[in-house]
Amino acid sequence: METEDRLEKQLKFIMEADKSKQVFRQTYLSDGSRKENDAEHSWHLALMCAILDEYANETVDTFRTMTMVLIHDIIEIDAGDTYAYDEVGNATKREREEKAAKRLFSLLPEDQAAYFRELWEEFEAGETPEAKFALTLDKVQPLLLNDAADGRSWKEHGVRVSQVLKRNEKTAEGSKRLWEHAEGLIEKNVGLGRLRDDR
Amino acid sequence: METEDRLEKQLKFIMEADKSKQVFRQTYLSDGSRKENDAEHSWHLALMCAILDEYANETVDTFRTMTMVLIHDIIEIDAGDTYAYDEVGNATKREREEKAAKRLFSLLPEDQAAYFRELWEEFEAGETPEAKFALTLDKVQPLLLNDAADGRSWKEHGVRVSQVLKRNEKTAEGSKRLWEHAEGLIEKNVGLGRLRDDR
Repeated sequence: METEDRLEKQLKFIMEADKSKQVFRQTYLSDGSRKENDAEHSWHLALMCAILDEYANETVDTFRTMTMVLIHDIIEIDAGDTYAYDEVGNATKREREEKAAKRLFSLLPEDQAAYFRELWEEFEAGETPEAKFALTLDKVQPLLLNDAADGRSWKEHGVRVSQVLKRNEKTAEGSKRLWEHAEGLIEKNVGLGRLRDDR
Repeated sequence: METEDRLEKQLKFIMEADKSKQVFRQTYLSDGSRKENDAEHSWHLALMCAILDEYANETVDTFRTMTMVLIHDIIEIDAGDTYAYDEVGNATKREREEKAAKRLFSLLPEDQAAYFRELWEEFEAGETPEAKFALTLDKVQPLLLNDAADGRSWKEHGVRVSQVLKRNEKTAEGSKRLWEHAEGLIEKNVGLGRLRDDR
């Protein structure tokens, strides 16, 4: 009986999580054909974890980091995706996401609800080696896609290089090596006029 | 120099993997609005790993299983998705997938190419506890989605219950508990006329 309830709760969360496939981000796929959704983005980050963990500044628990990136955007099912350069949206982001985390993770059995909530809080706080590395991947992945898609999303939003640099103030904290690469991509895209140079 | 090459190779694979977001399966999202792609499917399986590993028949290394499901469909970038009930397609599946695995994993540095190739082979062979559990999740997830989407994909293809049962001959090997649940869903959908009863 206990097990039945437990499994029902777990499956309810798993089916609710399916909605992540319909939360669209501002970033385009590498070929620029359409925008990426949260499920695809999270899968891509988890794959990056498996491949790039050797570049983390501090040794990370890759399994924990992977689980963290898999669930880091679940809250957007309720809270929606807030575009990186949307100042109004970012002012209310935390409150909307808190509420979403409460509802969504509570679908799970108590022990798992607590574990996922903790992982999400850890990601948001960005203080552990795992959270720092996860945040770095979360910032570097859209840079890679934007570069591949000829800066389509940057051009559509008229993004300035100062905004990108500000948003990436902490990206080197998770991985100096990956940030170094990302910086190269940013400069290249400024040079190509895909990012407005306001320095 | 060495590191630069290594990172370039890793990023090349990561960007090639982006194409998984454009390989569509026959399964619809839970709301039946559109078909699911490989990246979304793999993300969903990895999430299920994190939540349902307690139901594996044998103790599994969840990190290994998670990595396995994250990459299990990468080969479909070249080989395409072969629908479960497409007999012609399934006859040439292995050959197409072998060739795809060779090209795709070789984009990575040698050590990682070997590791991912091994994980994929392990999944395909379905003999270790991790591979058995991954295969179970890979079969149960579309059943959950089909059930939620009112059997849309089954109805479109006129799928018979005998086909579903044959395809799931080994699903209990990874988890008796999850197969028991899936069996209940199959019977429910036969009862609702979404699956043709040919027994």
